[in-house]
Amino acid sequence: MSGSEALCERLGIQHPIFGFTPSEHVAAAISRAGGLGVLGCVRFNDPADLDTALSFMDENTGGRPYGVDIVMPARIPTEGTQKDLSALVPEGHREFVERTLLRLGVPPLSGASAGDAGVLGWLHSVARAHVDIALRHRISLIANALGSPPVDVIERAHAAGVPVAALAGTAAHARRHVDNGVDIVVAQGYEAGGHTGEIASMVLVPEVVDAVGDRVPVLAAGGIGSGRQVLAAHALGAAGVWMGSYWLTTAEYQLGESAIQTALVRATSSDTVRSRIYTGKPARLLKNKWTQAWAEPDAPEPLPMPLQNMLVGEAHQRMSKGGDPDVVAMPVGQIVGRMNEVRPVAEVMASLLAEIEEARARLKA
Amino acid sequence: MSGSEALCERLGIQHPIFGFTPSEHVAAAISRAGGLGVLGCVRFNDPADLDTALSFMDENTGGRPYGVDIVMPARIPTEGTQKDLSALVPEGHREFVERTLLRLGVPPLSGASAGDAGVLGWLHSVARAHVDIALRHRISLIANALGSPPVDVIERAHAAGVPVAALAGTAAHARRHVDNGVDIVVAQGYEAGGHTGEIASMVLVPEVVDAVGDRVPVLAAGGIGSGRQVLAAHALGAAGVWMGSYWLTTAEYQLGESAIQTALVRATSSDTVRSRIYTGKPARLLKNKWTQAWAEPDAPEPLPMPLQNMLVGEAHQRMSKGGDPDVVAMPVGQIVGRMNEVRPVAEVMASLLAEIEEARARLKA
Repeated sequence: MSGSEALCERLGIQHPIFGFTPSEHVAAAISRAGGLGVLGCVRFNDPADLDTALSFMDENTGGRPYGVDIVMPARIPTEGTQKDLSALVPEGHREFVERTLLRLGVPPLSGASAGDAGVLGWLHSVARAHVDIALRHRISLIANALGSPPVDVIERAHAAGVPVAALAGTAAHARRHVDNGVDIVVAQGYEAGGHTGEIASMVLVPEVVDAVGDRVPVLAAGGIGSGRQVLAAHALGAAGVWMGSYWLTTAEYQLGESAIQTALVRATSSDTVRSRIYTGKPARLLKNKWTQAWAEPDAPEPLPMPLQNMLVGEAHQRMSKGGDPDVVAMPVGQIVGRMNEVRPVAEVMASLLAEIEEARARLKA
Repeated sequence: MSGSEALCERLGIQHPIFGFTPSEHVAAAISRAGGLGVLGCVRFNDPADLDTALSFMDENTGGRPYGVDIVMPARIPTEGTQKDLSALVPEGHREFVERTLLRLGVPPLSGASAGDAGVLGWLHSVARAHVDIALRHRISLIANALGSPPVDVIERAHAAGVPVAALAGTAAHARRHVDNGVDIVVAQGYEAGGHTGEIASMVLVPEVVDAVGDRVPVLAAGGIGSGRQVLAAHALGAAGVWMGSYWLTTAEYQLGESAIQTALVRATSSDTVRSRIYTGKPARLLKNKWTQAWAEPDAPEPLPMPLQNMLVGEAHQRMSKGGDPDVVAMPVGQIVGRMNEVRPVAEVMASLLAEIEEARARLKA
């Protein structure tokens, strides 16, 4: 049995295609299509909302397995209440954000929705609450997007029969994960969206496979959005692929005519930038007037995690409601150049699978 | 016949593995091993030296084909004599270089070798002289490492029956190359050594194949140093691979116990940085005390091509003779993490070919 087959059998999935997404609708559709939908939990500041989303998953994957992705940074960010932490954001930074939004024509929020706190899910306190909630649902995987999860979290997952995955940007990260008990390593290359390292997938994936591939399956992440890329990942030694960005233009987001999907559909692979302005750690984002503003000489240095996202949390909400595709805050990988239409998840998955077979046939010739 | 076979037949090579190198000894060995050795011409300030090197190639490839790589940037750099151009280098920049070399303990050159001019090969005047010389030898390829070669150069090559290759960092570059008459496009990803763009190979290669693959063969460059990576390049749609960095630790360089090969052998894939300090254009280099010095707050902005390399030309020579592996100036890709021993070219090629077959067998399973 190949590594891919063993992985599929262990998780009860048809295809070794892991789909990370912040939307429970998209995640459920990925699982229904035979992959493993992995719901990103970081946005659930209130764990009760995560509970609701996971109840939706329980009922909408047609009985198929799904996973969750929590965020526990290796270096623990400053803890505190929303109010305490908020006091640590310098006034000059707030002024820059306000001035920039005004210049870019982003309208303020209406009274009811004002005062967004930013994302708190990367505080260990919040992430642990996510783990507690998730283990009450029928999850098949807990992934950690930043560093190794704490050993006690891995042990709790294992006690519940749930394997743990962790993202790695270097072979050294991967070794540390596996030493800590992680069951699946996701080798995430430079070209990926969101938090990402410096080493590109072509180099990183075989390096991680050489480092830990005899102990755990390795998934390739970063730059995957076609059957050729899935096949290339397998050629590099990966047992499967982890795709995040590519689902952002699926219909199940139910965004309608959104500025974000408009911006994603028209962007090329040159239209991303790796920057600390989203969370305080380097993350790949869609390049536009907002990211450009932070590259100007008058822009302040981004704050450390979790303060930077608290600083820009309301701004993100304003831009999202503002509806200008030139001014959105959106993590996405270089594969955005291949995301050129809004399609249902099932159609995306069917195309991928057909392309893998085409590429395989071409490679044999 | 597959694209790879057609390419090999057209060029008269056994394997679609193109080996770029500044050493005629390495280039000849690559051709003898069944690939296409491509000699980088940019370092030949005096075209007569190139003539000598190509005569060596004519006699030392065992009758097998070889190519040359010239550099003609799309945006033509300031032309002028060495002395005229040298006058354009600001004094503050010279002082920074001198101060840095002193701080890093790099000894001055002995009188005879002092006054290196830096590389002049990216001046169009010098590059055209390279073309003239090359066309007098039995070359099978002219490649251009920066932008499309001028149309008249392409026409002269074609008139001599020599196909032309050009490196592309985006699909738009690739389209322009082919519109100008280029016969082979080298899609070079972010992870590559030397001059490189932002888009990683995993994303770039299929994008370039989609853009021009029905008109010309596409080679994958950047991050290739194992059979798995060669196979991945083919899975992405490439007809062959272009490797540069990987030959830098071959025995045919005849460097003996050199600081540069010591530095390369011990470096990991995290030990490179993309910077303008080598030539004025972004190029990936080995990360060390020299690149770090240019990232400090007191460092000046790098100068435009060709002035930056004139500024640091003598410094490069001093570092090379200085013998400290922590202080060398060396373009290399992220694949340096896989370059862990000094081996003859024939052995490197044999390993690659064996690994390709292993990877192919694993992928079939």
